[in-house]
Amino acid sequence: MKALVYRGPAKKALEDRPRPEIKASTDAIVRMTKTTICGTDLHILKGDVPTCEPGRILGHEGIGVIEEVGPAVTAFKPGQRVLISCISACGKCVYCRKLMFSHCTSGGWILGNKIDGTQAEFVRIPYADTSLYGVPDDADEEALVMLSDILPTGFECGVLNGKVQPGSTVAIVGSGPIGLAALLTAQFYSPAEIIMIDLDETRLEAAKRFGATAVVNSADGDVIRAVMQMTGDRGVDTAIEAVGIPATFELCQGIVAPGGTIANIGVHGTKVDLHLEHLWDRNVTITTRLVDTVSTPMLMNTLRSHKLDPKLLITHRFRLDQILDAYETFAHAADTRALKVIIEA
Amino acid sequence: MKALVYRGPAKKALEDRPRPEIKASTDAIVRMTKTTICGTDLHILKGDVPTCEPGRILGHEGIGVIEEVGPAVTAFKPGQRVLISCISACGKCVYCRKLMFSHCTSGGWILGNKIDGTQAEFVRIPYADTSLYGVPDDADEEALVMLSDILPTGFECGVLNGKVQPGSTVAIVGSGPIGLAALLTAQFYSPAEIIMIDLDETRLEAAKRFGATAVVNSADGDVIRAVMQMTGDRGVDTAIEAVGIPATFELCQGIVAPGGTIANIGVHGTKVDLHLEHLWDRNVTITTRLVDTVSTPMLMNTLRSHKLDPKLLITHRFRLDQILDAYETFAHAADTRALKVIIEA
Repeated sequence: MKALVYRGPAKKALEDRPRPEIKASTDAIVRMTKTTICGTDLHILKGDVPTCEPGRILGHEGIGVIEEVGPAVTAFKPGQRVLISCISACGKCVYCRKLMFSHCTSGGWILGNKIDGTQAEFVRIPYADTSLYGVPDDADEEALVMLSDILPTGFECGVLNGKVQPGSTVAIVGSGPIGLAALLTAQFYSPAEIIMIDLDETRLEAAKRFGATAVVNSADGDVIRAVMQMTGDRGVDTAIEAVGIPATFELCQGIVAPGGTIANIGVHGTKVDLHLEHLWDRNVTITTRLVDTVSTPMLMNTLRSHKLDPKLLITHRFRLDQILDAYETFAHAADTRALKVIIEA
Repeated sequence: MKALVYRGPAKKALEDRPRPEIKASTDAIVRMTKTTICGTDLHILKGDVPTCEPGRILGHEGIGVIEEVGPAVTAFKPGQRVLISCISACGKCVYCRKLMFSHCTSGGWILGNKIDGTQAEFVRIPYADTSLYGVPDDADEEALVMLSDILPTGFECGVLNGKVQPGSTVAIVGSGPIGLAALLTAQFYSPAEIIMIDLDETRLEAAKRFGATAVVNSADGDVIRAVMQMTGDRGVDTAIEAVGIPATFELCQGIVAPGGTIANIGVHGTKVDLHLEHLWDRNVTITTRLVDTVSTPMLMNTLRSHKLDPKLLITHRFRLDQILDAYETFAHAADTRALKVIIEA
């Protein structure tokens, strides 16, 4: 089968690889129909993810059809259409049993990282019963692919952890795909204000179309002052960090109101300064989270009831044999205006 | 009247001062019967609290008897015994109306900071109706003085924010009066383990008497390794920071389990390193808080029902005319083995 293989920092190739086989009784083999590329795949290609070794098929998102199941799989049968969660969950360990699937002791984020992933014609999914979600045959596959990772990530790590509430004020720092996913799902809770902050005017325009009540271009000057002016000098109840660098995390500390929450989504490679000398008495909460994908069934309901339109995030479409072009397009988003790309297997 | 007056960094004096008078209709004048000294008073004397100007009478804790009330005070009458909260709350502003009294727009921590405090024979209490608590005449005054600040601080900032739960594991970094107050109130929730960490063997012995299930002397070597060994390599569900320096806040980051909480109580004078490169995907929560004293009535109930014995914290007693000795004793706790000192007015 065709597969996109990581070959070490800055190297990748579309290769012919043997089809995966059932290894454990809880496995399923899924024939991929659609997948996508994540910012995390770009991190891997920069060499930032040491758990991902050269030779690995990348990708942890997608939708497909069950090809084969192991003898212990009871929830799915060959021929059934399934959404693949970016998080594999054994369903039995101490973390799974408190719904913290991200920290499953034998799963978690392993697809396209510690085991071969979804940017291929077929993929082996461990713990199929608790890592796949059945979807109707007539479901909108492109919309569903956005529910493998980016939508639950924006929602769980940003919106839920950030305690977005009716009438509250929210700032989202970073208007890339993840920040926009947080923007889309924050609106479930009817906050009064959602201020999007980014350097890229194209992304801020997308934010306005997707429901932001205000945007701030951080190239225009003092962002903290701008946000303070918008919030009557109080700051925001929720500051969502959707970039992953020290400057944006520090910005969140400057705009959070007393009693507010900083919800980190960004993948950070270095330590940051935490200004406890200002924050120790501000009654603030800071959260971190790797998505648990506990919200996937709920997000599927919002999709069905038209409360969520994740296809807004899709800007480009490619076939699997064009996946190298898809990476180029996705990696140069400032020029290509790409948000999420769909890859048809 | 006699009063302990801040005279600038490292300077204080017991002086004769005029008795305070009603200034606003919501004020009460309280004749002090007992007060105490807080670690924050020592911070003021180091010059760390710029809002506290020379000439200020120190102290924000105590119990006394209502001497006089302004015309708008309806909850209290002269002759009534009252507990003074360290936090003054107008009861009407946006923060008070969400029970975040610490951020009251005209109150908060003002006693012995922005207005004259309780280390005197009399004190003026603003917003008396919502900043005082009536207590029976036969109440144990020494125990109640511990409820002005230290007990609600340990409880609200440490135990409540730290989400201590039945069967959970807790580490408290710092076994001074505040850490011990957290230890006493953490036991309301029946955690499985409470590990106390400090450099001072005397304080760790106190911690054992007060209910710690284990102690770690941080002078003995690798504290993170010791805590990991005690928790099956998982770390603790709740790490309470009760010191206020970068090293202890970093220690908390090293011992918190995935899904756990770091609850900061310490007063920090400088920024700290937040290791988001390790924590971004650990599903942790970090909280800060200036005590709101919302738990004062509940803590008074636990005192009445013998679920809490705050007098364990009291090691020394002085008269108001000996308050300079009391400061010496409290400031040199390593030698004097002082925890909290009672000062009788």
